[in-house]
Amino acid sequence: MSPRKISVLGSTGSIGVSTLDVVRSHSDRFQIVAMSGGSNLSLLEEQVRLFRPDRVAVISEELARELSQRIGRDLDVTILHGVEGMIACATHPDVETVVSAIVGAAGLVPTMAAIEAGKSIALANKETLVVAGSLVMEAARRNDVSIYPVDSEHSAIEQSLCGHRKNDIRRLLLTASGGPFRTFDADRLKRVTPEQALAHPNWEMGAKITIDSATMMNKGLEVIEARWLFDLPQDQIEVVIHPESIVHSMVEYVDGSIIAQMGVPDMRTPIAYALSSPERLSLDLPPLDLCQLGKLTFEAPDPERFPCLGLAYRALQLGGTAPAVLNAANEIAVASFLEGGIPFVGIPQLVRAVLERHQVGRLEHVDDALKADLWARSAAREMLNDFCFEESQ
Amino acid sequence: MSPRKISVLGSTGSIGVSTLDVVRSHSDRFQIVAMSGGSNLSLLEEQVRLFRPDRVAVISEELARELSQRIGRDLDVTILHGVEGMIACATHPDVETVVSAIVGAAGLVPTMAAIEAGKSIALANKETLVVAGSLVMEAARRNDVSIYPVDSEHSAIEQSLCGHRKNDIRRLLLTASGGPFRTFDADRLKRVTPEQALAHPNWEMGAKITIDSATMMNKGLEVIEARWLFDLPQDQIEVVIHPESIVHSMVEYVDGSIIAQMGVPDMRTPIAYALSSPERLSLDLPPLDLCQLGKLTFEAPDPERFPCLGLAYRALQLGGTAPAVLNAANEIAVASFLEGGIPFVGIPQLVRAVLERHQVGRLEHVDDALKADLWARSAAREMLNDFCFEESQ
Repeated sequence: MSPRKISVLGSTGSIGVSTLDVVRSHSDRFQIVAMSGGSNLSLLEEQVRLFRPDRVAVISEELARELSQRIGRDLDVTILHGVEGMIACATHPDVETVVSAIVGAAGLVPTMAAIEAGKSIALANKETLVVAGSLVMEAARRNDVSIYPVDSEHSAIEQSLCGHRKNDIRRLLLTASGGPFRTFDADRLKRVTPEQALAHPNWEMGAKITIDSATMMNKGLEVIEARWLFDLPQDQIEVVIHPESIVHSMVEYVDGSIIAQMGVPDMRTPIAYALSSPERLSLDLPPLDLCQLGKLTFEAPDPERFPCLGLAYRALQLGGTAPAVLNAANEIAVASFLEGGIPFVGIPQLVRAVLERHQVGRLEHVDDALKADLWARSAAREMLNDFCFEESQ
Repeated sequence: MSPRKISVLGSTGSIGVSTLDVVRSHSDRFQIVAMSGGSNLSLLEEQVRLFRPDRVAVISEELARELSQRIGRDLDVTILHGVEGMIACATHPDVETVVSAIVGAAGLVPTMAAIEAGKSIALANKETLVVAGSLVMEAARRNDVSIYPVDSEHSAIEQSLCGHRKNDIRRLLLTASGGPFRTFDADRLKRVTPEQALAHPNWEMGAKITIDSATMMNKGLEVIEARWLFDLPQDQIEVVIHPESIVHSMVEYVDGSIIAQMGVPDMRTPIAYALSSPERLSLDLPPLDLCQLGKLTFEAPDPERFPCLGLAYRALQLGGTAPAVLNAANEIAVASFLEGGIPFVGIPQLVRAVLERHQVGRLEHVDDALKADLWARSAAREMLNDFCFEESQ
């Protein structure tokens, strides 16, 4: 069997690095044909030298020039840049599977290009579905393309659905760690610093997603993602707080059975499953020892202290461009929080304010989502200047 | 779709009653064509009047006469008795699925007859596989018959395997409640009474299986059952203590993923799944609320205080007739304990002594298992008379 040819969009991010780790430990199974990276050029150079892709893309022309100088004439690699560069990596004719792991709404366009080119998608970029879920899934159906989730939660649901009948589903139960402030009262939440928020108890992730995990917006975005990925209405998707992050998510069926997928928190498991399912790859991970762990705990999410989850359900209910607006406003709010601009509890306040001001439009083309995204960013930045954050949440 | 035609062997036992409950609530899906019951004739009469089977069997000629008198000429039902009667119920030409729910080794012969007659088997009688697993599975393969487990643990494993590849299994993880004496020290175990042992914390079951649950022999028998049902060596089958009996069992895969099936402890779930899988039936059960439950706990079994589990692994290792001997010796030991003959801690002592005295033979025919069973019963009874139970376990 010849190795599966893969393009990794976002190779220098957390998911990208884990993906390359899986690929390297199964080099007989996978081959990297293209990759796009962020601004960490020394890591990207190392990756290019190790995996020898045919194409590599970076964000700007300047970075492309710098990467060219680093690599020199050592390797036969085409260095591209910008959205066109990423699209060229996503649609490379040899590529069979595109790992979409660019953080944020920037992942949407190259992912759509990959779908239109008929590539299988291993989807870590949740914004793709949050911003334009209906369009993405429609394009996937039209091009007979499979979308394999890389999020640990959605991979768990995929694994818990496999072999069972969709008609028998009662609910999807998405688990959430609850983040570092799960036990904080409203007063303590007001004083949360970026440093505190960046220290996630279970998962090592990028800064944006770590803050989203602390506000629970991450789980809200995952609810939206699940709604599209599994084609189920929002009232069949629930969130359960599970601080140990061992049960990655569950599916409840009409006979009362719940099927769950568990494991140590390591992104290589969902990445490998997305690349090789229904087959599983041996991974060099510590086994999950439930007896040593002793217990798994569960609690209901608190909508008062963590309003972002409710805002995501609200955006789903509003439909159309609302989820794109939720996502864009949240990106601005998180960036502002990280820069010390707004307090932690200001994040949901800003998102709610932008969502309330938005006139929901229909989503007929990716451009509709991108326009809503731009509008929301601009509205959020504007409101940041004269927004008076409520003292009480 | 015409209703699936079913024969229930052991209709008046705990599993039989639950099976008929599932059948009654899905009468469009299932029809009872034959049943065999125990000595509770008033319940059996009620069942016969309600489900109108074509054939019914009881254990003895005397009970058959009494049941005939009770029913009189009200119904057109053939009343049979003894092993032949049960076989006639198991092989009724119209029957598609036989629910094998007779307790003890007595279930083996009619179940084998059903397999040879090409019926699908919903197997609650674990002794069938414990006593003659290799022969039963060989007969099932030869007759192209599917065996669906009704034990909650094996049903959980079946549900956790469904859709996944057998080659990717690392281990089966059978959960055990640990029984009512999980936290008892060795001294307290010596003073355990039958009344204490009959009060199982999570499941309502018959007396024999409740005592087996307290000694953990039940889990040992389930390990043997799993070895045959899923065709995996014993070193790929582990037991985890899980006092809440919510996670009914799990499968660990080579990528570190564990798939688990959970639910409220109610036998109707595995019964319904055995009768209708891969489809699931709506069941009128309280939903599992993990948040209300709060936590699930796990611990390793203690081989010192509960040696029956180790004896079952030992019997598997010895192979051939050894599991039949383990099972028969245990039946005698449990009966003696319930009658006040031996102490609770005497159960594993007697089983071990009988197993040690046994000359393991090959299992080439069901008769080999039945002979070993008879030998073990007789050896156990003999040893009961002059067996000096060790003070320390």
